[in-house]
Amino acid sequence: MGGLFQPNHLAFTLPIRLLKNMKQKNRSELTIYLAQQNYHIGNFEANTTKILAAIQEAKSQKADLIIFSELCICGYPPKDFLEFDDFILKSEQAIDRIKKETTDIAVLLGAPSRNPKPEGKNLFNSAYFLFEQEVTAIINKTLLPNYDVFDEYRYFEPSFTWNVVPFKGRNLAITICEDIWNLMDDPLYRICPMDLLMPQSPDLMINLSASPFDYVHGEGRLHIIRENVAKYQLPMIYCNTVGAQTELVFDGNSVVMNSKGDLMLQLPAFEEASGMITLQSDGSINGKPTTPVHALKEREVIPERFEEAHHIDLVHRAIVVGIQDYFRKMNFKEAIVASSGGIDSAVVLALASEALGANNVRALLLPSQFSSDHSVADAVTLSKNLGNPYDILAIQPVFDSMMQVLNPIFEDRPFSLAEENLQSRIRGNLVMALANKFNYILLNTSNKSELSTGYGTLYGDMAGGLGVLGDVYKQQVYQLARFINREREIIPNNILTKAPSAELRPGQKDSDSLPDYAVMDAILYQYIERRQGPKEIIALGFDEALVFRILGMVNRNEYKRNQFCPIIRVSPKAFGTGRRMPIVGKYLG
Amino acid sequence: MGGLFQPNHLAFTLPIRLLKNMKQKNRSELTIYLAQQNYHIGNFEANTTKILAAIQEAKSQKADLIIFSELCICGYPPKDFLEFDDFILKSEQAIDRIKKETTDIAVLLGAPSRNPKPEGKNLFNSAYFLFEQEVTAIINKTLLPNYDVFDEYRYFEPSFTWNVVPFKGRNLAITICEDIWNLMDDPLYRICPMDLLMPQSPDLMINLSASPFDYVHGEGRLHIIRENVAKYQLPMIYCNTVGAQTELVFDGNSVVMNSKGDLMLQLPAFEEASGMITLQSDGSINGKPTTPVHALKEREVIPERFEEAHHIDLVHRAIVVGIQDYFRKMNFKEAIVASSGGIDSAVVLALASEALGANNVRALLLPSQFSSDHSVADAVTLSKNLGNPYDILAIQPVFDSMMQVLNPIFEDRPFSLAEENLQSRIRGNLVMALANKFNYILLNTSNKSELSTGYGTLYGDMAGGLGVLGDVYKQQVYQLARFINREREIIPNNILTKAPSAELRPGQKDSDSLPDYAVMDAILYQYIERRQGPKEIIALGFDEALVFRILGMVNRNEYKRNQFCPIIRVSPKAFGTGRRMPIVGKYLG
Repeated sequence: MGGLFQPNHLAFTLPIRLLKNMKQKNRSELTIYLAQQNYHIGNFEANTTKILAAIQEAKSQKADLIIFSELCICGYPPKDFLEFDDFILKSEQAIDRIKKETTDIAVLLGAPSRNPKPEGKNLFNSAYFLFEQEVTAIINKTLLPNYDVFDEYRYFEPSFTWNVVPFKGRNLAITICEDIWNLMDDPLYRICPMDLLMPQSPDLMINLSASPFDYVHGEGRLHIIRENVAKYQLPMIYCNTVGAQTELVFDGNSVVMNSKGDLMLQLPAFEEASGMITLQSDGSINGKPTTPVHALKEREVIPERFEEAHHIDLVHRAIVVGIQDYFRKMNFKEAIVASSGGIDSAVVLALASEALGANNVRALLLPSQFSSDHSVADAVTLSKNLGNPYDILAIQPVFDSMMQVLNPIFEDRPFSLAEENLQSRIRGNLVMALANKFNYILLNTSNKSELSTGYGTLYGDMAGGLGVLGDVYKQQVYQLARFINREREIIPNNILTKAPSAELRPGQKDSDSLPDYAVMDAILYQYIERRQGPKEIIALGFDEALVFRILGMVNRNEYKRNQFCPIIRVSPKAFGTGRRMPIVGKYLG
Repeated sequence: MGGLFQPNHLAFTLPIRLLKNMKQKNRSELTIYLAQQNYHIGNFEANTTKILAAIQEAKSQKADLIIFSELCICGYPPKDFLEFDDFILKSEQAIDRIKKETTDIAVLLGAPSRNPKPEGKNLFNSAYFLFEQEVTAIINKTLLPNYDVFDEYRYFEPSFTWNVVPFKGRNLAITICEDIWNLMDDPLYRICPMDLLMPQSPDLMINLSASPFDYVHGEGRLHIIRENVAKYQLPMIYCNTVGAQTELVFDGNSVVMNSKGDLMLQLPAFEEASGMITLQSDGSINGKPTTPVHALKEREVIPERFEEAHHIDLVHRAIVVGIQDYFRKMNFKEAIVASSGGIDSAVVLALASEALGANNVRALLLPSQFSSDHSVADAVTLSKNLGNPYDILAIQPVFDSMMQVLNPIFEDRPFSLAEENLQSRIRGNLVMALANKFNYILLNTSNKSELSTGYGTLYGDMAGGLGVLGDVYKQQVYQLARFINREREIIPNNILTKAPSAELRPGQKDSDSLPDYAVMDAILYQYIERRQGPKEIIALGFDEALVFRILGMVNRNEYKRNQFCPIIRVSPKAFGTGRRMPIVGKYLG
């Protein structure tokens, strides 16, 4: 994981300054345009159109070179699409089309390339340098992340050759994303591509990235850029992708840093943007230094304690982008949310309204005989505050008819979990019936605390196309609610102050079945984000029995999460593709 | 993927025969016991107990050495459990316990070991050689599979040292699973561990495996063993694990081959077993050669045409084991199946009855107003033939009450997909209500053709804890049915002969919405198992529009499969962890 910059084995030992002085000569200015764009996986047509538009704009601004992000042609991560030859062919056709537009400008962009050698994997993760209608260089990625959500070693051959790309009197040291991270927990990371490029006297480092957001990663990224600049005493242009693709949200935050470590350009977080800088004849970069936004200030460290894992403004923004792009890329317009009057559905409604527009988010209130009056009242107030269309459908008649149908089998057995789940699933049915009838996408409201402990009903409240809060612990849901209410009371205060309840039996409270959320979230955070075992967690001062109880819940409920929809990832360890646990039925770890 | 044995780059060139003659001397016999066992991931207690019992048995039979399979201590695949220190600690404690029992016998078993070096990943996938209460050698796996269902490079450092293990006058060349496969689609596979061991004059090859079943893999495995024996002119002992862990089924099929390529011992498929052989002083193996079972006769090739992808007897057995072990390892006893009178639920009921006992499988018939009379009659006959308990609950009253509740919103809109799905979801609710009330596990009946094309209802017929037929195309479901009926009519013939229908609207047939299954399955097989693109599939003679229609359905419905339960894997490319596709909403590949 991480982002800790480590000394490497093949460290470059030549005196860099001396080398630079030797090759200092008069060169013309180089104007470089950065395109921070939002791509759609496999949508070559849309991605190419977007890339071509930026090239036209850069040409009109007389840029010498335009830089796009990693695998921009096909979108990131393309996953097993890479195993299909026609997918690679389409990528090559797109490059051919773009190549034709490189008469007055050079283009640097990311795309897969074929490995010409018979041995090794079929593909490289590459940067294409296009100029004067030719592919003048292909640079391959060396360090292939294969942890958490990343599977690059499943598809790509690592590079084993390193060359600068000469362009208009400058030597460009081009790397791809992880290549500048030099993490030491991967054997391939013993190679440091920049060390190997230094003997060729580069003038400028350029990194093409597809580096996803999590609430600590932005900090780590700027730290790494700084460390590279400090080590090699070269300016760096860092171009990241932006926008969400199902679970992953890319935050952009592309930057240009001069060789002294000043931030000379900083593109905004979470939106498409472009910028232009000039590399002057003396190697400096034009303009005045800018101050880093707070997302980019420190070394990346997963905080030791849950209480320090905040950045709720960024989490808020990432989720909004995650919803927005899921709908846009899947060609959906309207969402539906089962609105219970509780904190989770309230926060989802507010986030979805911000992402899609309040009139595109329909709230469905589905009270049962166990719903308290305030639940309906609070949910109604919320939707009035937001401006959502909403409906109220009482589920009692359906529940009664279900129980009647089941009666020959259930007979007079007492009310139990089966009847609780039944209510949740009737709600799931009704909200899905509306979704199917009117083409809504059901947004799921389960939070990370519930998903961790299995406190949810499969096919009931666990239904939905996208997990909006699945990477947000209950405590963080409250933080989000307070953030949403930062200017005015959008979510009724009563929703923030009442005790959480599933309202599936008379007087039920979450605290009947679950430990206190504050303690539970802190333990879950140690186990899930920080990969601590029971011994380490107990050593932090938590009750032993409670720790084992909670870890047991997490492991036992893997089968439920296995059937859960994609979750918008905002933490360094989200449920989904980044956390791969066997289904074992009990705590065995 | 594969299993094609390729020449390797570091090929050993010394004259092997000469070397062997040089070191030929009088040695005593070596008696070796193979333990083909079924492990449970993370269940160190159960696994250790099982291993200790086999050691006792081997001691009582005066064996010199007992061999277990890859990662037997923790079960395979342990996945992200490997990232927890306490998991590794428990593994080490288990080895300490076993070590104490090695006074009169040597033990060779698989377990993770820590990488003592600071660089590289933290763990190796290792074989421990235990003798006289000591760990006398640790051999690390070199070739770490990182394709399909495998993620070993996510966790393990590859070995970069190779040494034989001397034991009682013999040099043992010990490798782990993939180490003998030498696949060339992975750059690490350029290393051939056996080539590197040959200069140390080994007398015997031993391979510890956890090699899962698919309907072509068994053939490939024996082929590889033969190729190794032929190349190195040494006997090989191949010890594989057996039994299922959620989606993966291990078929065992452990073998001993003498240096001439004769099969000297062959443990049965799909069950725990043990065997003993003696390596005689001249290097030969005692006993008479045996004939390979038909699962182990040829080189592994994914057949070019769907019609050739059979082995239905093995698929049948694998699924039965898959159900059995899922229940046993999760500590479940009874299953429930929604029995529609169609072919899929009929086959699931038959397989589950074989796996769990007919009285542990409850059939729930849930007819609607659209169900034909024969559906109920056929389902009743089936359960009578099998001996399942069954119940009939008509869903009409629930459907009516749902429609009444929805009426203020649906008004007089025409019957549509929403109402079709609603029926399927009501069935899902009712069968889950029984599952929750009586602690049944719902077995899912969706087949691979339906899952491919999205012909199923999320939270309805797509509900369930285990996908029994999710890796079996509709044509293969019929083959399974005929196989089940091979001796007598268990599944009523009418179920095999009537046209498939979801019966969700009057007179509905699958063929109203789907292409002919025979053609569709053949196209799906090319796309999914064989990774062919539209151009290649059309070139096989399939209609262009139909190919694009079907591939579009596959891609569009990724979001549904993303929420599906684990599927028992029987093919070389199953939905689930082995097939990682982005959710893109349309055919873009």
